[in-house]
Amino acid sequence: MKNPENPQKIVEWMLKNDRFSNWLGIKLLSVEIGKVTLELEITDVMLNGFDILHGGIAFALADSALAFASNTHGRRAVSLEALINYTAPVFAGDTLTAIAEESNLTNNTAVYDITIFNQHKRKVALFRGTVYRTNKDYSDVL
Amino acid sequence: MKNPENPQKIVEWMLKNDRFSNWLGIKLLSVEIGKVTLELEITDVMLNGFDILHGGIAFALADSALAFASNTHGRRAVSLEALINYTAPVFAGDTLTAIAEESNLTNNTAVYDITIFNQHKRKVALFRGTVYRTNKDYSDVL
Amino acid sequence: MKNPENPQKIVEWMLKNDRFSNWLGIKLLSVEIGKVTLELEITDVMLNGFDILHGGIAFALADSALAFASNTHGRRAVSLEALINYTAPVFAGDTLTAIAEESNLTNNTAVYDITIFNQHKRKVALFRGTVYRTNKDYSDVL
Amino acid sequence: MKNPENPQKIVEWMLKNDRFSNWLGIKLLSVEIGKVTLELEITDVMLNGFDILHGGIAFALADSALAFASNTHGRRAVSLEALINYTAPVFAGDTLTAIAEESNLTNNTAVYDITIFNQHKRKVALFRGTVYRTNKDYSDVL
Repeated sequence: MKNPENPQKIVEWMLKNDRFSNWLGIKLLSVEIGKVTLELEITDVMLNGFDILHGGIAFALADSALAFASNTHGRRAVSLEALINYTAPVFAGDTLTAIAEESNLTNNTAVYDITIFNQHKRKVALFRGTVYRTNKDYSDVL
Repeated sequence: MKNPENPQKIVEWMLKNDRFSNWLGIKLLSVEIGKVTLELEITDVMLNGFDILHGGIAFALADSALAFASNTHGRRAVSLEALINYTAPVFAGDTLTAIAEESNLTNNTAVYDITIFNQHKRKVALFRGTVYRTNKDYSDVL
Repeated sequence: MKNPENPQKIVEWMLKNDRFSNWLGIKLLSVEIGKVTLELEITDVMLNGFDILHGGIAFALADSALAFASNTHGRRAVSLEALINYTAPVFAGDTLTAIAEESNLTNNTAVYDITIFNQHKRKVALFRGTVYRTNKDYSDVL
Repeated sequence: MKNPENPQKIVEWMLKNDRFSNWLGIKLLSVEIGKVTLELEITDVMLNGFDILHGGIAFALADSALAFASNTHGRRAVSLEALINYTAPVFAGDTLTAIAEESNLTNNTAVYDITIFNQHKRKVALFRGTVYRTNKDYSDVL
Protein backbone atom coordinates (compact mmCIF):
# COMPACT_ATOMS: atom_id res chain seq x y z
CA MET A 1 0.00 0.00 0.00
CA LYS A 2 2.42 2.67 -1.15
CA ASN A 3 -0.15 5.32 -1.97
CA PRO A 4 -3.04 4.65 0.37
CA GLU A 5 -6.47 5.58 -0.90
CA ASN A 6 -7.79 4.91 2.55
CA PRO A 7 -6.16 6.79 5.44
CA GLN A 8 -8.89 5.32 7.67
CA LYS A 9 -7.25 1.86 7.35
CA ILE A 10 -3.90 3.21 8.54
CA VAL A 11 -5.38 4.91 11.58
CA GLU A 12 -7.51 1.89 12.46
CA TRP A 13 -4.41 -0.31 12.31
CA MET A 14 -2.49 2.17 14.50
CA LEU A 15 -5.26 2.46 17.08
CA LYS A 16 -5.82 -1.32 17.21
CA ASN A 17 -2.14 -1.82 18.11
CA ASP A 18 -1.83 1.19 20.42
CA ARG A 19 -2.13 -0.30 23.89
CA PHE A 20 -2.13 2.96 25.83
CA SER A 21 -4.73 4.63 23.62
CA ASN A 22 -6.89 1.54 24.12
CA TRP A 23 -6.41 1.59 27.88
CA LEU A 24 -7.49 5.25 27.87
CA GLY A 25 -10.54 4.35 25.80
CA ILE A 26 -9.81 6.73 22.92
CA LYS A 27 -12.49 6.59 20.22
CA LEU A 28 -11.89 7.51 16.59
CA LEU A 29 -14.62 9.87 15.39
CA SER A 30 -13.33 10.77 11.92
CA VAL A 31 -10.29 10.54 9.63
CA GLU A 32 -9.24 12.46 6.54
CA ILE A 33 -5.78 12.94 5.05
CA GLY A 34 -3.95 15.17 7.52
CA LYS A 35 -6.89 15.39 9.93
CA VAL A 36 -8.43 13.26 12.68
CA THR A 37 -10.97 13.74 15.46
CA LEU A 38 -10.78 11.68 18.67
CA GLU A 39 -12.94 11.41 21.78
CA LEU A 40 -12.07 10.48 25.37
CA GLU A 41 -14.19 10.17 28.52
CA ILE A 42 -12.41 11.23 31.68
CA THR A 43 -12.51 8.78 34.58
CA ASP A 44 -11.30 8.96 38.16
CA VAL A 45 -8.00 7.15 37.55
CA MET A 46 -6.98 9.95 35.15
CA LEU A 47 -6.94 12.63 37.88
CA ASN A 48 -3.98 14.13 39.73
CA GLY A 49 -3.66 15.05 43.41
CA PHE A 50 -5.70 18.25 42.93
CA ASP A 51 -8.74 16.29 41.62
CA ILE A 52 -8.31 17.63 38.10
CA LEU A 53 -7.11 15.86 34.95
CA HIS A 54 -3.42 14.88 35.00
CA GLY A 55 -1.62 16.84 32.27
CA GLY A 56 -0.27 13.57 30.88
CA ILE A 57 -3.77 12.42 29.88
CA ALA A 58 -4.62 15.57 27.90
CA PHE A 59 -1.18 15.35 26.31
CA ALA A 60 -1.63 11.64 25.47
CA LEU A 61 -4.96 12.31 23.75
CA ALA A 62 -3.38 15.06 21.65
CA ASP A 63 -0.28 12.97 21.01
CA SER A 64 -2.37 10.09 19.65
CA ALA A 65 -4.18 12.57 17.41
CA LEU A 66 -0.78 13.87 16.21
CA ALA A 67 0.44 10.34 15.45
CA PHE A 68 -2.74 9.36 13.62
CA ALA A 69 -3.06 12.56 11.57
CA SER A 70 0.59 12.59 10.55
CA ASN A 71 0.52 8.97 9.34
CA THR A 72 -2.54 9.39 7.10
CA HIS A 73 -0.27 10.23 4.16
CA GLY A 74 0.94 6.62 4.14
CA ARG A 75 4.49 7.39 5.30
CA ARG A 76 5.45 6.48 8.85
CA ALA A 77 5.96 9.67 10.83
CA VAL A 78 7.45 9.95 14.32
CA SER A 79 7.09 12.80 16.84
CA LEU A 80 10.05 15.10 17.40
CA GLU A 81 8.59 17.54 19.90
CA ALA A 82 5.34 19.03 21.12
CA LEU A 83 4.13 22.03 23.14
CA ILE A 84 0.93 21.91 25.19
CA ASN A 85 -0.84 24.88 26.80
CA TYR A 86 -3.56 24.19 29.35
CA THR A 87 -6.46 26.61 29.04
CA ALA A 88 -9.13 25.26 31.39
CA PRO A 89 -9.32 22.52 34.05
CA VAL A 90 -10.86 19.13 33.19
CA PHE A 91 -12.80 16.99 35.66
CA ALA A 92 -13.92 13.37 36.01
CA GLY A 93 -17.02 12.79 33.91
CA ASP A 94 -16.00 15.29 31.20
CA THR A 95 -15.91 14.12 27.59
CA LEU A 96 -13.01 15.54 25.56
CA THR A 97 -12.82 15.94 21.79
CA ALA A 98 -9.43 16.41 20.12
CA ILE A 99 -9.27 17.83 16.61
CA ALA A 100 -5.94 17.51 14.76
CA GLU A 101 -5.22 19.66 11.72
CA GLU A 102 -2.17 19.93 9.49
CA SER A 103 -0.48 23.33 9.81
CA ASN A 104 2.55 22.62 7.64
CA LEU A 105 3.72 19.72 5.48
CA THR A 106 7.16 19.42 3.91
CA ASN A 107 8.93 16.38 2.51
CA ASN A 108 10.83 15.73 5.74
CA THR A 109 8.80 17.21 8.55
CA ALA A 110 5.26 18.37 9.33
CA VAL A 111 3.49 20.42 11.99
CA TYR A 112 0.03 19.67 13.44
CA ASP A 113 -2.22 21.69 15.70
CA ILE A 114 -4.46 19.77 18.04
CA THR A 115 -7.21 21.57 19.95
CA ILE A 116 -8.98 19.79 22.80
CA PHE A 117 -12.53 20.81 23.76
CA ASN A 118 -14.75 19.64 26.61
CA GLN A 119 -18.45 18.74 26.26
CA HIS A 120 -19.37 22.44 26.65
CA LYS A 121 -17.24 23.29 23.56
CA ARG A 122 -14.74 25.06 25.81
CA LYS A 123 -11.09 24.81 24.74
CA VAL A 124 -9.20 23.01 27.49
CA ALA A 125 -5.81 22.56 25.80
CA LEU A 126 -3.81 23.69 22.76
CA PHE A 127 -1.11 21.39 21.38
CA ARG A 128 1.38 21.95 18.56
CA GLY A 129 3.55 19.02 17.49
CA THR A 130 6.29 18.43 14.91
CA VAL A 131 6.94 15.05 13.26
CA TYR A 132 9.75 13.60 11.19
CA ARG A 133 8.48 11.80 8.11
CA THR A 134 10.38 8.58 7.41
CA ASN A 135 10.47 6.84 4.03
CA LYS A 136 8.88 3.69 5.46
CA ASP A 137 5.30 3.00 4.37
CA TYR A 138 2.58 0.61 5.59
CA SER A 139 2.97 -2.07 2.90
CA ASP A 140 4.34 -4.56 5.44
CA VAL A 141 1.21 -4.50 7.57
CA LEU A 142 -1.66 -3.35 5.36
CA MET B 1 1.99 24.90 57.28
CA LYS B 2 2.63 28.28 55.70
CA ASN B 3 6.40 27.96 55.46
CA PRO B 4 7.05 24.26 55.09
CA GLU B 5 10.30 23.02 56.48
CA ASN B 6 9.60 19.71 54.86
CA PRO B 7 8.98 19.72 51.10
CA GLN B 8 8.98 15.92 51.27
CA LYS B 9 5.63 16.02 53.11
CA ILE B 10 4.05 18.11 50.35
CA VAL B 11 5.22 15.82 47.58
CA GLU B 12 4.19 12.69 49.48
CA TRP B 13 0.71 14.18 49.95
CA MET B 14 0.52 15.07 46.24
CA LEU B 15 1.66 11.64 45.09
CA LYS B 16 -0.66 9.80 47.50
CA ASN B 17 -3.64 11.65 46.01
CA ASP B 18 -2.48 11.51 42.38
CA ARG B 19 -4.45 8.63 40.91
CA PHE B 20 -2.80 8.61 37.51
CA SER B 21 0.76 8.76 38.88
CA ASN B 22 -0.18 5.83 41.11
CA TRP B 23 -1.66 3.87 38.22
CA LEU B 24 1.59 4.42 36.32
CA GLY B 25 3.59 3.23 39.32
CA ILE B 26 5.69 6.37 39.70
CA LYS B 27 8.18 6.12 42.59
CA LEU B 28 9.58 9.10 44.45
CA LEU B 29 13.38 8.77 44.73
CA SER B 30 14.29 12.14 46.26
CA VAL B 31 12.90 15.60 47.08
CA GLU B 32 14.57 18.93 47.79
CA ILE B 33 13.17 22.45 47.47
CA GLY B 34 12.78 23.00 43.73
CA LYS B 35 14.03 19.54 42.80
CA VAL B 36 12.65 16.00 42.61
CA THR B 37 13.72 12.67 41.12
CA LEU B 38 11.13 10.10 40.02
CA GLU B 39 11.32 6.56 38.63
CA LEU B 40 8.98 4.63 36.34
CA GLU B 41 9.11 1.08 34.95
CA ILE B 42 7.72 0.76 31.45
CA THR B 43 5.14 -1.97 30.90
CA ASP B 44 3.36 -3.27 27.83
CA VAL B 45 0.18 -1.25 28.35
CA MET B 46 2.23 1.96 28.02
CA LEU B 47 3.22 1.26 24.39
CA ASN B 48 1.79 2.73 21.20
CA GLY B 49 1.07 0.99 17.87
CA PHE B 50 4.75 1.02 16.89
CA ASP B 51 5.75 -1.00 20.02
CA ILE B 52 7.54 1.96 21.57
CA LEU B 53 6.53 4.11 24.55
CA HIS B 54 3.48 6.32 23.95
CA GLY B 55 4.57 9.96 24.14
CA GLY B 56 1.87 10.59 26.72
CA ILE B 57 3.61 8.35 29.26
CA ALA B 58 6.98 10.10 29.03
CA PHE B 59 5.14 13.40 29.21
CA ALA B 60 3.10 12.27 32.24
CA LEU B 61 6.24 11.25 34.13
CA ALA B 62 7.84 14.65 33.45
CA ASP B 63 4.60 16.47 34.21
CA SER B 64 4.34 14.80 37.63
CA ALA B 65 7.95 15.81 38.28
CA LEU B 66 7.07 19.40 37.27
CA ALA B 67 4.07 19.45 39.60
CA PHE B 68 5.98 18.00 42.53
CA ALA B 69 9.09 20.20 42.15
CA SER B 70 7.09 23.40 41.70
CA ASN B 71 4.99 22.78 44.82
CA THR B 72 7.95 22.19 47.14
CA HIS B 73 8.03 25.89 48.03
CA GLY B 74 4.74 25.45 49.88
CA ARG B 75 2.63 27.51 47.45
CA ARG B 76 0.26 25.67 45.14
CA ALA B 77 1.53 25.93 41.58
CA VAL B 78 -0.34 24.92 38.43
CA SER B 79 1.08 24.14 34.99
CA LEU B 80 0.62 26.69 32.21
CA GLU B 81 2.46 24.99 29.38
CA ALA B 82 5.21 22.49 28.61
CA LEU B 83 7.44 21.49 25.69
CA ILE B 84 8.74 17.94 25.30
CA ASN B 85 11.45 16.77 22.88
CA TYR B 86 11.88 13.05 22.32
CA THR B 87 15.53 12.08 21.97
CA ALA B 88 15.56 8.25 21.96
CA PRO B 89 12.90 5.51 21.80
CA VAL B 90 11.79 3.75 24.99
CA PHE B 91 10.74 0.08 25.14
CA ALA B 92 8.81 -2.20 27.49
CA GLY B 93 11.05 -3.28 30.35
CA ASP B 94 13.00 -0.01 30.43
CA THR B 95 13.28 1.88 33.72
CA LEU B 96 13.07 5.66 33.40
CA THR B 97 14.43 8.26 35.80
CA ALA B 98 13.12 11.84 35.64
CA ILE B 99 15.14 14.63 37.24
CA ALA B 100 13.38 17.98 37.71
CA GLU B 101 15.38 21.14 38.34
CA GLU B 102 14.33 24.74 38.81
CA SER B 103 15.53 26.95 35.95
CA ASN B 104 13.79 30.15 36.99
CA LEU B 105 11.69 31.27 39.96
CA THR B 106 9.79 34.55 40.17
CA ASN B 107 6.99 35.57 42.50
CA ASN B 108 4.29 34.68 39.98
CA THR B 109 5.73 32.04 37.68
CA ALA B 110 8.54 29.49 37.53
CA VAL B 111 10.27 27.34 34.92
CA TYR B 112 11.48 23.77 35.44
CA ASP B 113 13.63 21.51 33.28
CA ILE B 114 12.96 17.81 33.48
CA THR B 115 15.38 15.35 31.86
CA ILE B 116 14.36 11.71 31.46
CA PHE B 117 17.03 9.00 31.27
CA ASN B 118 16.72 5.27 30.66
CA GLN B 119 18.57 2.57 32.64
CA HIS B 120 21.61 3.02 30.37
CA LYS B 121 21.83 6.72 31.39
CA ARG B 122 20.76 7.72 27.89
CA LYS B 123 18.60 10.86 27.66
CA VAL B 124 15.25 9.82 26.18
CA ALA B 125 13.31 13.08 26.60
CA LEU B 126 13.79 16.76 27.46
CA PHE B 127 10.91 18.68 29.02
CA ARG B 128 10.58 22.36 29.92
CA GLY B 129 7.49 23.49 31.80
CA THR B 130 6.14 26.78 33.15
CA VAL B 131 3.89 27.05 36.21
CA TYR B 132 1.75 29.78 37.69
CA ARG B 133 2.27 30.14 41.44
CA THR B 134 -0.98 30.75 43.32
CA ASN B 135 -1.17 32.27 46.79
CA LYS B 136 -2.80 29.14 48.22
CA ASP B 137 -0.66 27.06 50.56
CA TYR B 138 -0.98 23.55 52.01
CA SER B 139 -2.24 24.51 55.48
CA ASP B 140 -5.67 23.00 54.77
CA VAL B 141 -4.31 19.52 54.17
CA LEU B 142 -0.96 19.29 55.98
CA MET C 1 -7.52 55.40 31.43
CA LYS C 2 -8.39 52.40 33.57
CA ASN C 3 -10.89 50.86 31.19
CA PRO C 4 -9.74 51.88 27.76
CA GLU C 5 -12.42 52.28 25.15
CA ASN C 6 -9.72 52.63 22.57
CA PRO C 7 -7.18 49.79 22.34
CA GLN C 8 -5.80 51.57 19.26
CA LYS C 9 -4.40 54.32 21.52
CA ILE C 10 -2.52 51.79 23.65
CA VAL C 11 -0.95 50.07 20.67
CA GLU C 12 -0.04 53.36 19.01
CA TRP C 13 1.68 54.46 22.22
CA MET C 14 3.54 51.13 22.45
CA LEU C 15 4.67 51.23 18.82
CA LYS C 16 5.74 54.88 19.02
CA ASN C 17 8.05 54.03 21.94
CA ASP C 18 9.26 50.68 20.59
CA ARG C 19 12.65 51.49 19.08
CA PHE C 20 13.34 48.07 17.60
CA SER C 21 9.91 47.75 15.96
CA ASN C 22 10.49 51.18 14.47
CA TRP C 23 13.95 50.25 13.21
CA LEU C 24 12.40 47.19 11.56
CA GLY C 25 9.72 49.39 9.97
CA ILE C 26 6.74 47.52 11.41
CA LYS C 27 3.42 49.03 10.31
CA LEU C 28 0.19 48.71 12.26
CA LEU C 29 -2.61 47.61 9.92
CA SER C 30 -5.45 47.05 12.42
CA VAL C 31 -6.22 46.76 16.14
CA GLU C 32 -9.13 45.26 18.05
CA ILE C 33 -9.30 44.04 21.63
CA GLY C 34 -7.14 40.90 21.70
CA LYS C 35 -6.21 41.14 18.02
CA VAL C 36 -3.72 43.04 15.87
CA THR C 37 -2.38 42.85 12.33
CA LEU C 38 1.13 44.06 11.49
CA GLU C 39 3.14 44.38 8.27
CA LEU C 40 6.88 44.26 7.61
CA GLU C 41 8.95 44.61 4.44
CA ILE C 42 12.05 42.43 4.37
CA THR C 43 15.30 44.16 3.48
CA ASP C 44 18.82 42.91 2.93
CA VAL C 45 20.08 43.69 6.43
CA MET C 46 17.50 41.24 7.83
CA LEU C 47 19.06 38.20 6.12
CA ASN C 48 21.32 35.52 7.60
CA GLY C 49 24.35 33.81 6.06
CA PHE C 50 22.19 31.60 3.86
CA ASP C 51 20.52 34.62 2.18
CA ILE C 52 17.18 33.93 3.85
CA LEU C 53 15.44 35.82 6.63
CA HIS C 54 17.15 35.56 10.03
CA GLY C 55 14.84 33.73 12.42
CA GLY C 56 15.14 36.61 14.86
CA ILE C 57 13.33 38.96 12.48
CA ALA C 58 10.31 36.71 11.99
CA PHE C 59 10.27 36.16 15.74
CA ALA C 60 10.52 39.91 16.46
CA LEU C 61 7.56 40.67 14.19
CA ALA C 62 5.45 38.02 15.95
CA ASP C 63 6.69 39.14 19.36
CA SER C 64 5.63 42.73 18.70
CA ALA C 65 2.22 41.42 17.63
CA LEU C 66 2.04 39.41 20.86
CA ALA C 67 2.93 42.45 22.96
CA PHE C 68 0.46 44.72 21.19
CA ALA C 69 -2.47 42.25 21.20
CA SER C 70 -2.00 41.29 24.84
CA ASN C 71 -1.96 44.91 26.02
CA THR C 72 -5.19 45.91 24.26
CA HIS C 73 -7.17 45.00 27.39
CA GLY C 74 -5.61 47.99 29.17
CA ARG C 75 -3.52 45.96 31.60
CA ARG C 76 0.23 45.79 31.04
CA ALA C 77 1.16 42.28 29.97
CA VAL C 78 4.68 40.86 29.67
CA SER C 79 5.85 37.83 27.67
CA LEU C 80 6.73 34.66 29.56
CA GLU C 81 7.62 32.36 26.68
CA ALA C 82 7.00 31.73 23.00
CA LEU C 83 7.38 28.92 20.47
CA ILE C 84 8.02 29.62 16.79
CA ASN C 85 7.84 27.11 13.94
CA TYR C 86 9.27 28.09 10.56
CA THR C 87 7.18 26.79 7.69
CA ALA C 88 8.65 28.41 4.57
CA PRO C 89 11.75 30.49 3.78
CA VAL C 90 11.47 34.29 3.47
CA PHE C 91 13.58 36.41 1.11
CA ALA C 92 14.60 40.05 0.71
CA GLY C 93 11.77 41.96 -0.94
CA ASP C 94 9.02 39.86 0.65
CA THR C 95 6.26 41.62 2.56
CA LEU C 96 5.13 39.82 5.70
CA THR C 97 1.79 40.13 7.46
CA ALA C 98 1.44 38.96 11.07
CA ILE C 99 -2.01 38.29 12.49
CA ALA C 100 -2.29 37.91 16.27
CA GLU C 101 -5.34 36.30 17.84
CA GLU C 102 -6.23 35.53 21.44
CA SER C 103 -6.39 31.80 22.09
CA ASN C 104 -6.93 31.92 25.84
CA LEU C 105 -7.48 34.70 28.42
CA THR C 106 -7.48 34.20 32.18
CA ASN C 107 -7.09 36.77 34.94
CA ASN C 108 -3.35 36.16 35.30
CA THR C 109 -2.11 34.83 31.98
CA ALA C 110 -3.11 34.70 28.32
CA VAL C 111 -2.10 32.81 25.17
CA TYR C 112 -1.89 34.31 21.66
CA ASP C 113 -1.38 32.68 18.28
CA ILE C 114 0.43 34.71 15.67
CA THR C 115 0.52 33.51 12.07
CA ILE C 116 2.90 35.15 9.60
CA PHE C 117 2.09 35.13 5.88
CA ASN C 118 4.11 36.33 2.90
CA GLN C 119 2.72 38.39 0.01
CA HIS C 120 1.55 35.16 -1.70
CA LYS C 121 -0.61 34.32 1.37
CA ARG C 122 1.73 31.46 2.20
CA LYS C 123 2.24 30.76 5.92
CA VAL C 124 5.91 31.31 6.70
CA ALA C 125 5.84 30.99 10.50
CA LEU C 126 3.57 29.93 13.36
CA PHE C 127 4.09 31.50 16.79
CA ARG C 128 2.38 30.76 20.10
CA GLY C 129 3.17 33.01 23.07
CA THR C 130 2.13 33.21 26.72
CA VAL C 131 1.99 36.49 28.68
CA TYR C 132 1.67 37.37 32.35
CA ARG C 133 -0.94 40.06 32.95
CA THR C 134 0.17 42.60 35.57
CA ASN C 135 -2.22 44.86 37.50
CA LYS C 136 -0.60 47.98 36.08
CA ASP C 137 -2.67 49.95 33.58
CA TYR C 138 -1.89 52.79 31.15
CA SER C 139 -3.27 55.68 33.20
CA ASP C 140 0.25 57.08 33.76
CA VAL C 141 0.94 57.56 30.05
CA LEU C 142 -2.46 57.83 28.31
CA MET D 1 35.51 20.06 2.95
CA LYS D 2 33.28 17.06 3.60
CA ASN D 3 34.60 16.26 7.05
CA PRO D 4 35.69 19.59 8.47
CA GLU D 5 38.52 19.50 10.94
CA ASN D 6 37.87 23.14 11.64
CA PRO D 7 34.35 24.04 12.77
CA GLN D 8 35.68 27.53 13.45
CA LYS D 9 36.00 28.12 9.68
CA ILE D 10 32.36 27.21 9.11
CA VAL D 11 31.09 29.52 11.81
CA GLU D 12 33.32 32.38 10.69
CA TRP D 13 31.98 31.99 7.14
CA MET D 14 28.40 31.96 8.44
CA LEU D 15 28.88 35.01 10.64
CA LYS D 16 30.69 36.96 7.90
CA ASN D 17 27.69 36.48 5.60
CA ASP D 18 25.00 36.95 8.25
CA ARG D 19 23.88 40.54 7.75
CA PHE D 20 21.51 40.73 10.71
CA SER D 21 24.01 39.21 13.18
CA ASN D 22 26.52 41.79 11.95
CA TRP D 23 24.04 44.63 12.32
CA LEU D 24 23.43 43.48 15.90
CA GLY D 25 27.18 43.38 16.54
CA ILE D 26 27.32 39.73 17.59
CA LYS D 27 30.84 38.62 18.53
CA LEU D 28 32.08 35.04 18.34
CA LEU D 29 33.83 34.12 21.60
CA SER D 30 34.46 30.39 21.06
CA VAL D 31 33.58 27.45 18.80
CA GLU D 32 33.78 23.69 19.27
CA ILE D 33 31.89 20.93 17.49
CA GLY D 34 28.30 21.26 18.71
CA LYS D 35 29.03 24.27 20.90
CA VAL D 36 29.47 28.04 20.48
CA THR D 37 29.59 31.09 22.73
CA LEU D 38 28.47 34.52 21.47
CA GLU D 39 28.41 38.02 22.94
CA LEU D 40 26.15 41.00 22.30
CA GLU D 41 26.08 44.52 23.71
CA ILE D 42 22.60 45.95 24.12
CA THR D 43 22.01 49.38 22.66
CA ASP D 44 19.07 51.75 22.70
CA VAL D 45 17.70 50.75 19.30
CA MET D 46 17.18 47.20 20.62
CA LEU D 47 14.60 48.27 23.23
CA ASN D 48 10.80 47.97 23.10
CA GLY D 49 8.15 50.44 24.30
CA PHE D 50 8.68 49.49 27.94
CA ASP D 51 12.41 50.44 27.82
CA ILE D 52 13.52 46.82 28.11
CA LEU D 53 15.09 44.56 25.48
CA HIS D 54 12.73 43.57 22.65
CA GLY D 55 12.16 39.81 22.80
CA GLY D 56 13.22 39.55 19.17
CA ILE D 57 16.79 40.60 20.01
CA ALA D 58 17.30 37.97 22.72
CA PHE D 59 15.74 35.44 20.37
CA ALA D 60 17.98 36.51 17.47
CA LEU D 61 21.12 36.12 19.56
CA ALA D 62 20.07 32.60 20.60
CA ASP D 63 18.97 31.77 17.07
CA SER D 64 22.37 32.72 15.65
CA ALA D 65 23.98 30.53 18.33
CA LEU D 66 21.65 27.68 17.29
CA ALA D 67 22.55 28.10 13.63
CA PHE D 68 26.28 28.27 14.29
CA ALA D 69 26.42 25.35 16.74
CA SER D 70 24.29 23.07 14.56
CA ASN D 71 26.43 23.68 11.46
CA THR D 72 29.75 22.86 13.14
CA HIS D 73 29.38 19.22 12.08
CA GLY D 74 29.92 20.29 8.48
CA ARG D 75 26.37 19.51 7.30
CA ARG D 76 24.03 22.42 6.61
CA ALA D 77 21.32 22.47 9.25
CA VAL D 78 18.18 24.61 9.21
CA SER D 79 15.94 25.58 12.14
CA LEU D 80 12.56 23.90 12.46
CA GLU D 81 11.30 25.47 15.67
CA ALA D 82 12.43 27.07 18.90
CA LEU D 83 11.02 27.90 22.34
CA ILE D 84 12.27 30.86 24.36
CA ASN D 85 11.54 31.59 28.02
CA TYR D 86 12.37 35.03 29.38
CA THR D 87 13.70 34.88 32.92
CA ALA D 88 14.89 38.41 33.68
CA PRO D 89 14.61 41.81 32.00
CA VAL D 90 17.53 43.17 29.96
CA PHE D 91 18.42 46.87 29.69
CA ALA D 92 20.45 49.14 27.41
CA GLY D 93 24.13 48.88 28.32
CA ASP D 94 23.91 45.21 29.35
CA THR D 95 26.31 42.73 27.75
CA LEU D 96 24.77 39.35 26.97
CA THR D 97 26.58 36.03 26.58
CA ALA D 98 24.84 33.14 24.82
CA ILE D 99 26.12 29.61 25.30
CA ALA D 100 24.82 26.95 22.90
CA GLU D 101 25.15 23.26 23.75
CA GLU D 102 24.04 20.14 21.89
CA SER D 103 21.33 18.29 23.78
CA ASN D 104 20.56 15.64 21.17
CA LEU D 105 22.03 14.66 17.79
CA THR D 106 20.50 12.17 15.38
CA ASN D 107 21.17 11.65 11.69
CA ASN D 108 18.22 13.82 10.62
CA THR D 109 17.57 16.26 13.43
CA ALA D 110 19.30 17.78 16.46
CA VAL D 111 18.32 19.76 19.57
CA TYR D 112 20.34 22.60 21.10
CA ASP D 113 19.96 24.45 24.38
CA ILE D 114 21.04 28.06 24.44
CA THR D 115 21.29 29.92 27.74
CA ILE D 116 21.69 33.70 27.76
CA PHE D 117 23.37 35.43 30.71
CA ASN D 118 23.87 39.11 31.47
CA GLN D 119 27.11 40.67 32.73
CA HIS D 120 26.13 39.74 36.32
CA LYS D 121 25.97 36.02 35.32
CA ARG D 122 22.20 36.13 35.73
CA LYS D 123 20.22 33.94 33.32
CA VAL D 124 18.00 36.23 31.26
CA ALA D 125 16.62 33.71 28.74
CA LEU D 126 16.42 29.97 28.04
CA PHE D 127 16.10 28.78 24.45
CA ARG D 128 15.62 25.27 23.06
CA GLY D 129 15.75 24.81 19.29
CA THR D 130 15.40 21.91 16.86
CA VAL D 131 17.16 21.77 13.47
CA TYR D 132 16.80 19.60 10.40
CA ARG D 133 20.17 18.35 9.13
CA THR D 134 20.41 18.43 5.33
CA ASN D 135 22.89 16.38 3.31
CA LYS D 136 24.50 19.51 1.88
CA ASP D 137 28.00 20.31 3.13
CA TYR D 138 30.24 23.39 2.90
CA SER D 139 32.50 22.21 0.06
CA ASP D 140 31.05 24.82 -2.31
CA VAL D 141 32.12 27.76 -0.16
CA LEU D 142 35.03 26.57 2.01
